[in-house]
Amino acid sequence: SDSQDLDLAILDSVMGQLDASRIRENLRELSKEPHVATSPRDEALVQLLLGRWKDSATGLDSAKTSEYTVLLSYPSAEQPNSVEVVDPSGGLLVYANRGSEEDFKHLEAQRIKLEGTIALTRYGGVGRGAKAINAAKHGVVGVLVYTDPGDINDGKNSPSETFPNSWGLPPSGVERGSYFEYFGDPLTPYLPAHPSSFRLDLNNISGFPPIPTQPIGFEDAKDLLCNLTGPSAPGSWQGALGCEYKLGPGFEPNGSFPADSEVKVSVHNRLELRTSSNVLGIIQGAVEPDRYVIYGNHRDSWVHGAVDPSSGTAVLLEISRVLGTLLKKGAWRPRRTIILASWGAEEFGLIGSTEFTEEFLSKLQERTVAYINVDISVFSNATLRAQGTPPAQSVIFSATKEISAPGSSGLSIYDNWIRYTNRTSPVYGLVPKLGTLGAGSDYASFVHFLGITSMDLAYTYDQSKTSARIYPTYHTAFDTFDYVEKFLDPDFSSHQAVARTAGSVLLRLSDSLFLPLNVSDYSETLQSFLQAAQDDLGTLLEKQNISLGPLVTAVEKFKTAAAALVQHILTLQKSSPKVRMVNDQLMLLERAFLNPRAFPDERYYSHVLWAPNTASVATFPGLANACARAQEINSGPEAWAEVQRQLSIVVTALEGAAATLAPVADL
Amino acid sequence: SDSQDLDLAILDSVMGQLDASRIRENLRELSKEPHVATSPRDEALVQLLLGRWKDSATGLDSAKTSEYTVLLSYPSAEQPNSVEVVDPSGGLLVYANRGSEEDFKHLEAQRIKLEGTIALTRYGGVGRGAKAINAAKHGVVGVLVYTDPGDINDGKNSPSETFPNSWGLPPSGVERGSYFEYFGDPLTPYLPAHPSSFRLDLNNISGFPPIPTQPIGFEDAKDLLCNLTGPSAPGSWQGALGCEYKLGPGFEPNGSFPADSEVKVSVHNRLELRTSSNVLGIIQGAVEPDRYVIYGNHRDSWVHGAVDPSSGTAVLLEISRVLGTLLKKGAWRPRRTIILASWGAEEFGLIGSTEFTEEFLSKLQERTVAYINVDISVFSNATLRAQGTPPAQSVIFSATKEISAPGSSGLSIYDNWIRYTNRTSPVYGLVPKLGTLGAGSDYASFVHFLGITSMDLAYTYDQSKTSARIYPTYHTAFDTFDYVEKFLDPDFSSHQAVARTAGSVLLRLSDSLFLPLNVSDYSETLQSFLQAAQDDLGTLLEKQNISLGPLVTAVEKFKTAAAALVQHILTLQKSSPKVRMVNDQLMLLERAFLNPRAFPDERYYSHVLWAPNTASVATFPGLANACARAQEINSGPEAWAEVQRQLSIVVTALEGAAATLAPVADL
Ligand SMILES: [Ca+2]
Ligand SMILES: [Ca+2]
Ligand SMILES: [Zn+2]
Ligand SMILES: [Zn+2]
Ligand SMILES: [Zn+2]
Ligand SMILES: [Zn+2]
Repeated sequence: SDSQDLDLAILDSVMGQLDASRIRENLRELSKEPHVATSPRDEALVQLLLGRWKDSATGLDSAKTSEYTVLLSYPSAEQPNSVEVVDPSGGLLVYANRGSEEDFKHLEAQRIKLEGTIALTRYGGVGRGAKAINAAKHGVVGVLVYTDPGDINDGKNSPSETFPNSWGLPPSGVERGSYFEYFGDPLTPYLPAHPSSFRLDLNNISGFPPIPTQPIGFEDAKDLLCNLTGPSAPGSWQGALGCEYKLGPGFEPNGSFPADSEVKVSVHNRLELRTSSNVLGIIQGAVEPDRYVIYGNHRDSWVHGAVDPSSGTAVLLEISRVLGTLLKKGAWRPRRTIILASWGAEEFGLIGSTEFTEEFLSKLQERTVAYINVDISVFSNATLRAQGTPPAQSVIFSATKEISAPGSSGLSIYDNWIRYTNRTSPVYGLVPKLGTLGAGSDYASFVHFLGITSMDLAYTYDQSKTSARIYPTYHTAFDTFDYVEKFLDPDFSSHQAVARTAGSVLLRLSDSLFLPLNVSDYSETLQSFLQAAQDDLGTLLEKQNISLGPLVTAVEKFKTAAAALVQHILTLQKSSPKVRMVNDQLMLLERAFLNPRAFPDERYYSHVLWAPNTASVATFPGLANACARAQEINSGPEAWAEVQRQLSIVVTALEGAAATLAPVADL
Repeated sequence: SDSQDLDLAILDSVMGQLDASRIRENLRELSKEPHVATSPRDEALVQLLLGRWKDSATGLDSAKTSEYTVLLSYPSAEQPNSVEVVDPSGGLLVYANRGSEEDFKHLEAQRIKLEGTIALTRYGGVGRGAKAINAAKHGVVGVLVYTDPGDINDGKNSPSETFPNSWGLPPSGVERGSYFEYFGDPLTPYLPAHPSSFRLDLNNISGFPPIPTQPIGFEDAKDLLCNLTGPSAPGSWQGALGCEYKLGPGFEPNGSFPADSEVKVSVHNRLELRTSSNVLGIIQGAVEPDRYVIYGNHRDSWVHGAVDPSSGTAVLLEISRVLGTLLKKGAWRPRRTIILASWGAEEFGLIGSTEFTEEFLSKLQERTVAYINVDISVFSNATLRAQGTPPAQSVIFSATKEISAPGSSGLSIYDNWIRYTNRTSPVYGLVPKLGTLGAGSDYASFVHFLGITSMDLAYTYDQSKTSARIYPTYHTAFDTFDYVEKFLDPDFSSHQAVARTAGSVLLRLSDSLFLPLNVSDYSETLQSFLQAAQDDLGTLLEKQNISLGPLVTAVEKFKTAAAALVQHILTLQKSSPKVRMVNDQLMLLERAFLNPRAFPDERYYSHVLWAPNTASVATFPGLANACARAQEINSGPEAWAEVQRQLSIVVTALEGAAATLAPVADL
């Protein structure tokens, strides 16, 4: 019927059927072999997914693949990449901490000549690509990146203390990763990468590291770093390799290498056009087939990728099996359409998902209720970790309150979560803390480019028990099924907990008559951004005669309109034709925050609330960044004009958003 | 009820009540005094409209004004603009025909030195602003623009042959107009011009004429032009001033002026921030209040503005009276919301309507079914003239088939129209020809910036009987009520015909259960653009290894999807909840053609099918312009890359549009 609503019996049944041992078997199969993007095994997994989703007893209504021709960077089989310590013919080695701009400035302040050097940096702090960009600015000609055991292993660095003897990263483990600065196929920004599409000139593309960059394990890093000469590195630069870190340049006279040795970084990666596949499956909505709930994860790994991404895909497949079974039995069909997706080439820069959003931009923007991402489903087994835009908070809370946490606590996932990560909301009091979405996985183009309410769900470790940046074998050859089974989630109960959470969120979004997106939860975000602007930028702006008054008014308008809409919804009958109208207001709110002209230098980023904020004030990103730039020495009046422009962009977006929440026939 | 549909009895009643004499009285009042934008009389008319729309017996549900602080250029009261013939201290006069780039090139080919000259140009050919821009490029320091009696009066130029003795423009008539190259408030592109909004630096804005520019009447132009010396102007440059036009530079020795006389153009216009008002009125929809049909016209004139814009406003007020009366009686409420608008400051660059679209961008894009513009409602009384995007064709045809044409022919407006302006459609055979929308009135930001199906309606003259560029008193002080009553539409039956047409289109759009927008009429446009690309650019592109194959495929996909959707609609029950879903597909199709990144240099233009095409091939504008640029001498490989990029932009838009028309739960 038109007023079909969430059926709690079906929801219960789905929760009950999601099976830990099936997730385990999915994971065993998915991670059996390395399956880097476009490799034969990646293509074999495409067929595996397609088979599952087309299964006559457990599959979906339909499924298909969709191919894009994309630019990927692969090591050369004939000319392997190498790092060598050689007679003078490379560059003197320096230690540059995390490779941030401040790190290189510090080296220069120590009178260390960076021109022509090779910089050894450790993972963390700034992104991979940024290390090379920063380094090149200072004349560095090559970059090494290693994982310090202090950052990943709580200091443990001997083979006896690391995998397979603990979850720690072994000394030989090398963290791979994309060094591409943007996301999407590098040659086809804003266009789907079909064979015939316009492509940028390969010799003229931006976003790739300007100098050779190579990741190494901490075993090799130790050889290099513990032999450096020069002044001592500051305390905050020290790590757990078991020696005092020095800055270089070059090696000390009596160490393992001749004192005049240099380091040569040879990277022979080749950029190649390859065909990468997405797999898409669909369950057609019974009442509102033109409203989409999209749930996806990438498929490609760096090596075996048991955790990243197969732990997510194993969950995705178990959810599709349970829903598919209900569907094929005729026991259930969702109110709205569900689209399941297995994205290709995420590890090379979120490519499959980005190309998909480019290809179906209008259709997706008009019709998508929300995007759910489960990439790594289990970092470890302590607590839920959720990231998302504010309208996603309510449905995640509702779902997790009804599901038992793994283990023997007897708590709900929600009650367990709140013990690990919480905040005090001015509206609700103490609640679990939802993180914000950067560009770390396939949700990026959905939220930043299309303005679709998005979220990312996982189980993770207790941050009070380890300072690990991420699970230790992340992006290494040690991310295997054995690793998961021994150290992350032996009984797969955390996988099951994520399957239940994602499954419940998915069903609530696809089946609830009223969309469970609480738009008034955006009011807290706006208020906190406003508060930060007033507290940390108010005086500065006043001096420039820039008033935050219009922003205060706009935030107030938004809060009032959102609260009134929430009240209005409570008065509606289930059978009212107005239900779809308010649902459209809820679904489309996030779109009102898009402005494709706000950040002309940021590829894809159009969401005026969630674009990268590289400044120190936790406020509207355009405002924060513009203020930071205006305060630099040498900044001129144009920089203050840009502050004004960014302020007007936010005010216009907030007022426009408030107008979409106001009664629909108000002038 | 939810399936409320167009009520033909109500439609008939509206058609019957639209009253010619009331339109006449509206026009008399509206044009009684000059009412240039933001003048006291303009503000008085704001109150008049507000009063009408708030009237308790004949008004709307509600009405209000909305103000913007915008930059307008006004002549100075203290320092009037002037054109003087003086001792050498100005510039030598040259005649530059219509002021196109080719015209100036021709002068240079004749070895006429343009540096430091004043160019006398005639209206027509290129736009007002372009004449000054072209002139300045060639070193010209001032521009005069006049209306040649050959272009406006079928050659008649004596007072006895012109108004008040005919509809012809008197010798002293001066055509005013905006010389601003863009539209919208010049200081606030993409932002609503609220007092607190970011504004561009006044000293640093683009789009205003680079050199002084002054319009003059043909009386004054004759004095200047018929005294020029130098070589004869080409035949196509000759006009009807009764002398042989020469090119200059300077005056002939024995004429009215000393031979060394120069011309001095003094323009003292001041740019001022003024408050301009829109008036908005609303009739709330009974069933789908969140779907808007917007109908508007500007209110500001250059002088009395009886034709432009008051003939349109007189019709708007009569429609609002008839609909308001039905509404207040409780006899009718539309299915969807109707918004009526009286825009401010159109004559200065479509400012009021553009600011409105900037302020309510998201809300309007999500919910607007169509925008109807009736600016000048009656150019003259021979035939309908309609412009619009293809989905508007069907509703205009349906409406005009049911309304009698004015006069004694006994024909419908449609059957009369087809005799004047027609084309052979491959689908329908002979049909009236719908014109395309440029940026000539307030529909511009709706169609080009927001991607909303738009149209402009008017009655006009028989082009076989006059070669007038436009009605002769356009934008002059002679555009008065007397002029309309004597020469354009003495019985106001053409005004009534336009009121009936616009009223019927408005009711059909607001009340029909199925939106009367035939999306498959876009197929003809796409096919003709494709054909032109193949015929006129195919060989050229082949030489560059650029294939039109993907475009052929995309057009096919669109045609197939559109035809299938039209068939699908025929199968739907009136009570089906699917009705709103297909209506959303119809409403939103035009949005799928928007790409805000397609034309970075064109302010607001984002519609990839209707952006300005300045090239000679009638195909997709981005493709046409890029091909023209690539063929210029000195063009490099980047120019051909841009051709490829534009081709991919169109292909992506068409494929994306086709995807929105496909069955909604198809992958
Ligand atoms: Ca792309
Ligand atoms: Ca503006
Ligand atoms: Zn991943
Ligand atoms: Zn990864
Ligand atoms: Zn007008
Ligand atoms: Zn006008």
